[in-house]
Amino acid sequence: MEEWEQYFSKNPAPGAYALACAQLKEFCERHANYCPIVLVTSGGTTVPLERNTVRFVDNFSAGTRGAASTEYFLDEGYAVIFLHRDKSVAPFMRHLHPGVLLDALEEQEGGRLALTQQHSAQVHPIWQSYQRVKKEKRLLWLNFTTLSDYLWLLRAATQCLQQHAPSSLLYLAAAVSDFYIPQDNISEHKIQSSSGPLTVTLELVPKMLSPLVSIWGPGLFVTSFKLETDGGMLIEKATAALRRYKHNLVIGNLLQTRREEVTLVTEGNSCLVRLSEQQKQDNVEIEKVIVQEVCSRHRNFISRQLQENNTAQ
Amino acid sequence: MEEWEQYFSKNPAPGAYALACAQLKEFCERHANYCPIVLVTSGGTTVPLERNTVRFVDNFSAGTRGAASTEYFLDEGYAVIFLHRDKSVAPFMRHLHPGVLLDALEEQEGGRLALTQQHSAQVHPIWQSYQRVKKEKRLLWLNFTTLSDYLWLLRAATQCLQQHAPSSLLYLAAAVSDFYIPQDNISEHKIQSSSGPLTVTLELVPKMLSPLVSIWGPGLFVTSFKLETDGGMLIEKATAALRRYKHNLVIGNLLQTRREEVTLVTEGNSCLVRLSEQQKQDNVEIEKVIVQEVCSRHRNFISRQLQENNTAQ
Repeated sequence: MEEWEQYFSKNPAPGAYALACAQLKEFCERHANYCPIVLVTSGGTTVPLERNTVRFVDNFSAGTRGAASTEYFLDEGYAVIFLHRDKSVAPFMRHLHPGVLLDALEEQEGGRLALTQQHSAQVHPIWQSYQRVKKEKRLLWLNFTTLSDYLWLLRAATQCLQQHAPSSLLYLAAAVSDFYIPQDNISEHKIQSSSGPLTVTLELVPKMLSPLVSIWGPGLFVTSFKLETDGGMLIEKATAALRRYKHNLVIGNLLQTRREEVTLVTEGNSCLVRLSEQQKQDNVEIEKVIVQEVCSRHRNFISRQLQENNTAQ
Repeated sequence: MEEWEQYFSKNPAPGAYALACAQLKEFCERHANYCPIVLVTSGGTTVPLERNTVRFVDNFSAGTRGAASTEYFLDEGYAVIFLHRDKSVAPFMRHLHPGVLLDALEEQEGGRLALTQQHSAQVHPIWQSYQRVKKEKRLLWLNFTTLSDYLWLLRAATQCLQQHAPSSLLYLAAAVSDFYIPQDNISEHKIQSSSGPLTVTLELVPKMLSPLVSIWGPGLFVTSFKLETDGGMLIEKATAALRRYKHNLVIGNLLQTRREEVTLVTEGNSCLVRLSEQQKQDNVEIEKVIVQEVCSRHRNFISRQLQENNTAQ
């Protein structure tokens, strides 16, 4: 048994797994003939230190990149499966801060609460996009908390999208833990501080991109992200990932500058995308530029695949 | 040097520390003559594994207990310092879900967005309370992310409130890590998975309740929380904490049942507080009952202290 198979055999599926699979199937079948479909993963995964979980290792990610990208994929005409960490940043909703909101409401005659004129003008275009997407049912919300939940849902979504290759796209923006604690080593109850210093040994998670590209979704356009904090090793690590897994695109980014620049790495080509001063002034989000770039490459990929299929016939 | 002093000497103050101290001083001085003041701590603290933090150990806590309790302390006439984990559940705002909200907005004639009749009726009392509290400036928002930020702000707030004992109250509902990684052992950059399995050694955090009760705020009414997952050891652990630190009240709760019951433990007395079936049906929150109980005990404490002072004079 491969390492990744062992992982799935030892870590049980999340609670609502059957429901999620049914939703995925229905969503993909409904949209496949009409528009391309993208799986966007977003937010960090947790690794529990206790089965009754009080403590856990987390990966830094608010989920802003995934949430923003989802909006831009919808703009580009895609149907989006938004697989996100529970309570992370959400598309559309991210523009409404509940804190600001209580200040932005005012009482009208008759006691009804309405947004102030100024706030209403800001929220209106977002509200309109949200209503349109909702009416078209082009956004499927699936969530996870732990690493294990994430991996189960990632596999299910990939296998579902493979039925609709090559016009399906994976955009793996979630910050997924490289380490985990095997089920057998997890403490049942809250670890007591009276036991003294705590040593935690984390095992390596099997590299899931490998079965993802070769077995679950061999016909899909796969985009992964690589986050580093040390600029010196970014391109090298991104290129190594690409060679190892043989997928289509790695988007490299540094923790410190990730809102302003990323590097798109393909076999033999690395392309720096950086917001111009003008774009920054206009509050253009880098996700808009990234998504346009990814969609363009995906369209080329689809053309090539269809050509090859025609040639082969 | 005591262990807790060493901790502060090795872990630097958070960025906006001076500003927070100034806000605390101004807030306490403004309210002290008019109403009791409570410090509510809320949400979990993080322990970074890397200085450029991608990974961290977190403590499970959405911050619901602290946020709900804050609202009930405000109802009881207290001024509240809400020291909370950044992006955790917030008082008032917690009743507005941005997701629901985009669905709850409708376009009026002229294009202005207003809450639907039904949603407006639900939000109205919350909006009104929020506006009143805001006008009275009875709520100070301070936030933290890491364990170190939390401890610095906890000490500053306690020292400030000590100036206004005995009518100040500490209500320590935050889920604070018992373990940390000393600065010298923290990796500068993101830990690489290519190095193989990861062993993390976490040291014990010095018990800060000890200097808090004896040095920073000896005249305050101090309430701490004890969360366990194993019911068998809850009362025993709560009582041990009380004997060790000699503060006023420990509120014991189990992860599994914490929304329905807690145990208030004082020296020689443990009192179970459980929501009745009727209260559950009426959606009464247990924080309402807890806060009423704590305020009642705090009032008795104030009376006794004032009596003792009068007798001594």
